[in-house]
Amino acid sequence: MIEPQTIAIVGTGLLGGSIGLGLRAAGHKGRLVGVGRRPQTLEKAIAHGCIDEGTCDVAQAAKESDLMILATPLGAFESTLRQLAPAQHERLVITDVGSVKGVVCAMAGRVLRHPQLFVGSHPMAGSELQGPEHARKDLFVGRPCVVVRGAATEAALARVQWLWDTLRARAFYMSAEEHDRKVAAISHLPHAVAALLLQNALAEQAFDVASSGLADTTRVASGDPELWADIFLLNSTAVMSSLRPFGEQLERLGQLIAQGDRAGLVALLRSSKESRDVWLQRSRVPPQGE
Amino acid sequence: MIEPQTIAIVGTGLLGGSIGLGLRAAGHKGRLVGVGRRPQTLEKAIAHGCIDEGTCDVAQAAKESDLMILATPLGAFESTLRQLAPAQHERLVITDVGSVKGVVCAMAGRVLRHPQLFVGSHPMAGSELQGPEHARKDLFVGRPCVVVRGAATEAALARVQWLWDTLRARAFYMSAEEHDRKVAAISHLPHAVAALLLQNALAEQAFDVASSGLADTTRVASGDPELWADIFLLNSTAVMSSLRPFGEQLERLGQLIAQGDRAGLVALLRSSKESRDVWLQRSRVPPQGE
Repeated sequence: MIEPQTIAIVGTGLLGGSIGLGLRAAGHKGRLVGVGRRPQTLEKAIAHGCIDEGTCDVAQAAKESDLMILATPLGAFESTLRQLAPAQHERLVITDVGSVKGVVCAMAGRVLRHPQLFVGSHPMAGSELQGPEHARKDLFVGRPCVVVRGAATEAALARVQWLWDTLRARAFYMSAEEHDRKVAAISHLPHAVAALLLQNALAEQAFDVASSGLADTTRVASGDPELWADIFLLNSTAVMSSLRPFGEQLERLGQLIAQGDRAGLVALLRSSKESRDVWLQRSRVPPQGE
Repeated sequence: MIEPQTIAIVGTGLLGGSIGLGLRAAGHKGRLVGVGRRPQTLEKAIAHGCIDEGTCDVAQAAKESDLMILATPLGAFESTLRQLAPAQHERLVITDVGSVKGVVCAMAGRVLRHPQLFVGSHPMAGSELQGPEHARKDLFVGRPCVVVRGAATEAALARVQWLWDTLRARAFYMSAEEHDRKVAAISHLPHAVAALLLQNALAEQAFDVASSGLADTTRVASGDPELWADIFLLNSTAVMSSLRPFGEQLERLGQLIAQGDRAGLVALLRSSKESRDVWLQRSRVPPQGE
């Protein structure tokens, strides 16, 4: 059976909470069990309708579930996988929502008892806001969600596809390596750059003249520092591979300005504008705002 | 008299149009004359209630006005100033909304008949959307607006202060040099970086996984390429001075990642997050969105 009866959501913050709300809104009738370290967060998630019940025992939740979704910060993945591994039965499909796939899929392959029941996922949704109180039933609607097939069975894949279909995300498949390289370009590098733009504004004491341009450009930098430090470290190869050409592009832009090459600048800016406008027209990405 | 009777708005696009709408919404009773090159744009601006009447003759508009606001793209400033200069009478105060102040104030000082009646302004408001059809009466409400005193008389300053007070912007004074250095940090460098992030996403063919993070980070890059090429060139000294340390910061970030220095990364990201959060709490900048 593709549709699971009992779903365990490990980590009931913004993402985990929104998965619960979204499943309920879509009419899913099965049990939703939240797993967390702090009873307070679980109670909050229950109060917000994200889960039916909560437990701090991930192994017990694994025993009782047929789909488990890891939605904790990446830094907690290894210990979570180690705790649940002995309890993984042969119907328990596991996926995750982590921003890095290479390291996570390799870890699942190493640690789990049934690694062929693990399918890596990364829904492109989120917010710099945290906690189940900011969860939204439509957080994943229309968003791309990368699914990494790896060594998973067809049955495991079908169940994870069911999850993202039910949440109305647009699941599509690629290798962990391709995912990590692409998200370095569209998420990790932009995050790094946003953080550094703020350092620069700080050094210039320029916040008094700053307005919505800087606010939007740096929105992502209000995300959790611990979570993002882990993302940079767990995707270090791809992030560092993107930093170098970006630094070179900055230098080339400086040369265009130094040479007063207006035609060159217009061509560069036009190419960027057009690629953004075409992308947004095609994908209808809503801005996250604040 | 501080409040002007006839106001000429040169360039009735998003900014010029919003000035007209804002003045009317605030109850200003004087004539609003739009000046433009294309009768079509002027008619559109009249139809949207931004101006009362339109003309293509900037010298004639100068003769009839006691406040003139230059709201064309920066590239048109010099020819506009040259055309109106012979018609500048001794009650005609002139200001602008250009994103660069050093070059513009120097140009006004060189070209105008009464340079002591020129006061440079830069309201920190705008949008990547263009044209009077996107004008908003509240575009400037609560926004910072830099005013460059220069060699202006008290009477000229008072009239420009009246303008921004009436539009409910938060006017504050600094030198053209300080302005140009600060906007390089909070606007021109972020624009450059946004454009390059899109080049990078393009090179990696990564738009398929991109979502609201990239959309927000790069929103400004959908602005007019010609306008922004001029901004980079007219503020080249400050922009280039900001590109270099930014490239060095990128390298330092790469070193933190290469060394696996999690504490250093967290400290950097936390400092950026906190400076952004404190700034937005204090200034209540609304996100522009799309």
